[in-house]
Amino acid sequence: MQAEEYNRRGKELVDYISKYLGSIRERRVIPDVKPGYMKELLPDSAPVEPEDWENIFNDIERVIMPGVVHWQSPHMHAYYPSLTSWPSMLGDMLADAINCVGFTWASSPACTELETTVMDWLCKALGLPSFFLHHHPDSRGGGILQSTVSESTLVALLAARKDKILQLRAELDQEVDDSILNSRLVAYASDQAHSSVEKAGLISLVKIRFLPSDENLSLRGDTLKQAIQEDRRRGLVPFLLCSTLGTTGVCAFDKLLDIKHLGLWLHVDAAYAGSAYFCPELRWSLQGIEFSDSFVFNPSKWMMVHFDCTAFWVKDKYKLQQTFSVDPVYLRHENSHSATDFMHWQIPLSRRFRSLKLWFVMRAFGLKNLQAHIRHVGGTYFYLFFRNASTQELLRRLTRSGTMYLIPAEIHNKCIIRFTVTSQFTTADDIRKDWNIISKTAAALLAETDSLNNTQEIFDDGGVEALFCQLHLHRFVRPGHCQCVLRRTKRSFYD
Amino acid sequence: MQAEEYNRRGKELVDYISKYLGSIRERRVIPDVKPGYMKELLPDSAPVEPEDWENIFNDIERVIMPGVVHWQSPHMHAYYPSLTSWPSMLGDMLADAINCVGFTWASSPACTELETTVMDWLCKALGLPSFFLHHHPDSRGGGILQSTVSESTLVALLAARKDKILQLRAELDQEVDDSILNSRLVAYASDQAHSSVEKAGLISLVKIRFLPSDENLSLRGDTLKQAIQEDRRRGLVPFLLCSTLGTTGVCAFDKLLDIKHLGLWLHVDAAYAGSAYFCPELRWSLQGIEFSDSFVFNPSKWMMVHFDCTAFWVKDKYKLQQTFSVDPVYLRHENSHSATDFMHWQIPLSRRFRSLKLWFVMRAFGLKNLQAHIRHVGGTYFYLFFRNASTQELLRRLTRSGTMYLIPAEIHNKCIIRFTVTSQFTTADDIRKDWNIISKTAAALLAETDSLNNTQEIFDDGGVEALFCQLHLHRFVRPGHCQCVLRRTKRSFYD
Repeated sequence: MQAEEYNRRGKELVDYISKYLGSIRERRVIPDVKPGYMKELLPDSAPVEPEDWENIFNDIERVIMPGVVHWQSPHMHAYYPSLTSWPSMLGDMLADAINCVGFTWASSPACTELETTVMDWLCKALGLPSFFLHHHPDSRGGGILQSTVSESTLVALLAARKDKILQLRAELDQEVDDSILNSRLVAYASDQAHSSVEKAGLISLVKIRFLPSDENLSLRGDTLKQAIQEDRRRGLVPFLLCSTLGTTGVCAFDKLLDIKHLGLWLHVDAAYAGSAYFCPELRWSLQGIEFSDSFVFNPSKWMMVHFDCTAFWVKDKYKLQQTFSVDPVYLRHENSHSATDFMHWQIPLSRRFRSLKLWFVMRAFGLKNLQAHIRHVGGTYFYLFFRNASTQELLRRLTRSGTMYLIPAEIHNKCIIRFTVTSQFTTADDIRKDWNIISKTAAALLAETDSLNNTQEIFDDGGVEALFCQLHLHRFVRPGHCQCVLRRTKRSFYD
Repeated sequence: MQAEEYNRRGKELVDYISKYLGSIRERRVIPDVKPGYMKELLPDSAPVEPEDWENIFNDIERVIMPGVVHWQSPHMHAYYPSLTSWPSMLGDMLADAINCVGFTWASSPACTELETTVMDWLCKALGLPSFFLHHHPDSRGGGILQSTVSESTLVALLAARKDKILQLRAELDQEVDDSILNSRLVAYASDQAHSSVEKAGLISLVKIRFLPSDENLSLRGDTLKQAIQEDRRRGLVPFLLCSTLGTTGVCAFDKLLDIKHLGLWLHVDAAYAGSAYFCPELRWSLQGIEFSDSFVFNPSKWMMVHFDCTAFWVKDKYKLQQTFSVDPVYLRHENSHSATDFMHWQIPLSRRFRSLKLWFVMRAFGLKNLQAHIRHVGGTYFYLFFRNASTQELLRRLTRSGTMYLIPAEIHNKCIIRFTVTSQFTTADDIRKDWNIISKTAAALLAETDSLNNTQEIFDDGGVEALFCQLHLHRFVRPGHCQCVLRRTKRSFYD
């Protein structure tokens, strides 16, 4: 392919993308394929001769689309929102053409400097503490774009661990292997924390205790303090609390605790919920953020900056740098001591020019429209409480229909169905359509179940309508202010 | 921005990108900016109101480009090739629009299935062993796209560690903490290995011994065996050798050793050089690849699939899965047991649809043109051997000119200048232009140095031409077959 052909094919692809996203609700959201489906459609080896673009392009609809879960569809209610947007896509088009690798300031100054600027913009826009700013006289901190929240949680754990190991070493009068000290460390999270916390434990070999959450699915301070006391008695050294703002299961919020005097690093995982803090009235769950040492959220979820784009802030950047610094000659430059070299803030060496898409989104929407998006478009979750076996059967039937995509979660041994509103293009009609299918499927299931055994008692009045009286909602409202979104939807929430 | 505007702006951006890459050699490759340059050019906070695209677009030239290192420029000779290409850019345009998150097969079957298919294509095209194939009756292995080689090396280390810890535990008759076992482990690499190996050691708390390389900058088997014996005597447990094919400094090659009987996992880092194996005549350094447990290279370097795109293969996928498996309810699906869920093969949970750009590149070029690209376009490295202070001064002057970008390396205490040919658009004229600048700058320096002290003896005949008699070349030829590429260039290598 030569430049002229790229110019033509690129524009055709812009048309294809416009059409794909513009008509996405007509596509079946869950593909009707079995594992291995693609093997029949493609050769076993790469072609020796170059292929015409027409062939390649036609295979998008023949080979790829039949196996795609359409995450941008208004009928995608699974996992979490993973939104893209027009300015975000333009940002990465440019970044992919420049294709610089920003491991140091010198390897592409614009890459590092735009990232520090935009991370400061984002920090201020979310109402986060000024100690997270790059450009602030009293700050030792700063923000960086990481690939994922999983990686950021691991980075926070490793930084907190390094800090604690250095403290322990300073207290000892003999040389002890870091791994031996590691065996004494213990970190905490609630039983609602994301699976990436467990993974960070597998990688670091650090013990992690998942503490029971309360009836609001939040971790309580007294639960944590009791665990710390127990562990200290056993000779362990508590060093990290990973708090969640907006859990994966039901978007519950831990209270942020002042644990500095206990010698713990407070890492805050707001992967999904972080975008909500664009709206001042939704910042109630940020109370205590001044106690945090690191904070992470995903613009790649609700904020419409397409994946990957994870915003991670740390209060003391030197604690990151002392964790990750390796300093080979081939990466030194004359500004090594005065400029920010993000390679010392992360696990990989290389990094993309990810801030461009974030910058484009913040400017093209403006804070006003980002707030409007948060307030009116996405981020409502609700759950059907049911008997576990019936819930699983309802989910199975809905999944097989292919018309909408839902996934389960397990909350205190109860199987629930998560229903997330993930698309910025969602209309009231989209929700009504899915509501009708859920209602009919549930009614049919209920009729069958009723004839098999008497499960009547689990519903208020035994009717389909009653299913939705069982709705439990965690939205960005204070506990106790939960409302039945589905009912609001039937009126005018999405209009 | 609405769909209609995206359609128009996207096409304008395709034009901008065509023009940017088409005229890139006219831009100064190293930007003339100091740390903090962008702060003056941008506001301190994000805009509240949405901005017009014209404003945003105009800032690409006003704010971004003055600070960009143009990695696609023919005058970029620093670091390593980080190439993009037209079909690669089209691939990510599509992936960013679909924006599915492929952590499990069910979260987007096409994402997982195209990746397994294309990784098999690539495995065969490079002549790697069939035990790395997904689709092969005798294979327990497979390939996956990771973000970076740094991450892949860490993944290999963690998998090898888990395997060894399980072995050690099985041999013990009492419960021992994993961290205690970790304190006994030791891994090896040569002193020429990439800095990411050291970083993997910092993260895992595993001891890594960097063993001296020989006069060809390769790690020798007897050096390794001696180290293993010493460490065993000290009570340590050797578990991993990280061999490099194409070191960062001078593209030297370790010999791949049969170390299975010593109980070691062999990980092969061919980050840059891996692309060379498209050409059967360049596979001499792959000798011994049948002893490897994992292999990694970057299509994002020489192969023109833009960053990030790292191809990583493992001989036994179950050893990855036992390292990283966490299994939350919300990620289970009905094909969990029969399909590939790549989340168990990597550190993060989420993952992009990266295989699209790799697929587009392999098809649009065809193996024939990829081979031609390797044979004729990129990947020559050479070095000026000089006194360290003079070499550093030469480099400083060349960097300040901004016309080309070179970086230093340190080889056995000797400072050298690396000159990589990184762009697919490089012509003979580009190389001649840079050659003339290097010659003149070196001549001026030589004249000054001569007048200060007699350094004449380090050159064969004292002239500028003689500088280049000192050229040392590691290209993809067998040791002893080195040639002076710069001289070949003056004739017709790039014509």
